[in-house]
Amino acid sequence: MPSSTAAAPVSGAGQYDGQYERTERTTPTRYRDRASYDRDLVHEILDAGYVCHLGFVRDGAPVVLPTLYGRVGDRLYVHGSTGSRPLRSAGEAREPGMPVCVTVTHVDGLVLARSAFHHSLNYRSVVVHGTARRVTDAAELTEALDALVNQVVPGRAADSRPASAKELAATAVLRVDLTEVSAKVRHAGPADDEEDVALPHWSGVVPVTTAYGAPVPADDLTPGIPVPDYLTGR
Amino acid sequence: MPSSTAAAPVSGAGQYDGQYERTERTTPTRYRDRASYDRDLVHEILDAGYVCHLGFVRDGAPVVLPTLYGRVGDRLYVHGSTGSRPLRSAGEAREPGMPVCVTVTHVDGLVLARSAFHHSLNYRSVVVHGTARRVTDAAELTEALDALVNQVVPGRAADSRPASAKELAATAVLRVDLTEVSAKVRHAGPADDEEDVALPHWSGVVPVTTAYGAPVPADDLTPGIPVPDYLTGR
Repeated sequence: MPSSTAAAPVSGAGQYDGQYERTERTTPTRYRDRASYDRDLVHEILDAGYVCHLGFVRDGAPVVLPTLYGRVGDRLYVHGSTGSRPLRSAGEAREPGMPVCVTVTHVDGLVLARSAFHHSLNYRSVVVHGTARRVTDAAELTEALDALVNQVVPGRAADSRPASAKELAATAVLRVDLTEVSAKVRHAGPADDEEDVALPHWSGVVPVTTAYGAPVPADDLTPGIPVPDYLTGR
Repeated sequence: MPSSTAAAPVSGAGQYDGQYERTERTTPTRYRDRASYDRDLVHEILDAGYVCHLGFVRDGAPVVLPTLYGRVGDRLYVHGSTGSRPLRSAGEAREPGMPVCVTVTHVDGLVLARSAFHHSLNYRSVVVHGTARRVTDAAELTEALDALVNQVVPGRAADSRPASAKELAATAVLRVDLTEVSAKVRHAGPADDEEDVALPHWSGVVPVTTAYGAPVPADDLTPGIPVPDYLTGR
């Protein structure tokens, strides 16, 4: 019976059709309408960035480090060589892996309300809860490194020297499967209280974007190598 | 004896002269030259932003949420009402507070090396380890809210309706003192291996900045209220 089959959650998959499965810790208590479990939306937000904030626990205390990531389907690859001793040790291949939280945030606007209280941001964010395991398989590691490079500059991996076996061995990449994931989006004007609307304060939104400047060649760049198309189109 | 006095660490202050005290967990094992404990540099990086990633531990697992912050001297105020149940409960005023890690990151450039392995980012980041305590004193809460608003748009707090007592009570602001803090900065061109320099791949840096668009007035803005100077100067 297609209808009842369709209604059953996909056991163990952590997602159902186009939705990630909602869990207690991906359910916000405030602004619930801003939360989404839509797979396409989550991927879109992840694909719009390349820097995540990776959280893990060390000696009972939280550690949050910025690092690069790349997405391949429902796998998130996170660069682990951020100079952090605990991250590198905890990220070893040993089971059961390391509990992590990976968060990606894009700021889209400054929201200026008449009241200080209602000031806010327009933003898109994704929070991933999961377990990080160090990637050790050479083929997967190569794929992950390509994903990390292409996440920053799509098309770049094919136009660079691939990692050597020695470099692969020196690179700590953590894999986090996308199963317990949520997105949050605010995209609206100020939400002032009715009695504040007539106050004489300017109110509105200042749009925020990330701007990419003209590429600056390396000092030792071989003369005659042009700026590649995948950069000029940015 | 001034010289020996000057050499003694300031007990309990977590900083000495213009430097935060280095601890084991603020000492990176890689790229140690990128790390800094300089108080002015830390403040400068913090003051260049307004969104942090706040990490805390819930049921043994890390949680990382984006939220607003404001700095007042060596106090960091973090907005706690991010819709997170655990954050709000853990952030209550009870001692000994909640262990947190607050991280602020600015991306300044995409660093394209000839080798995939040496791709990197230019960035400035600050990592704060500490204990978050909920601000309950009304005067401090008002100061903290002003700091949060002014961090996003300097000068805005004075040009908005101050929070009412009811709003203050509904606002969860966490205070984290800046004692165990480090900054990391990468600001350089690609660091290719010597044998890769002649490879036919373009190499250099793509500058990244945050761009602010023309302010968009709220739909219900009272006609005649001009865009304030503190926005046009941005």
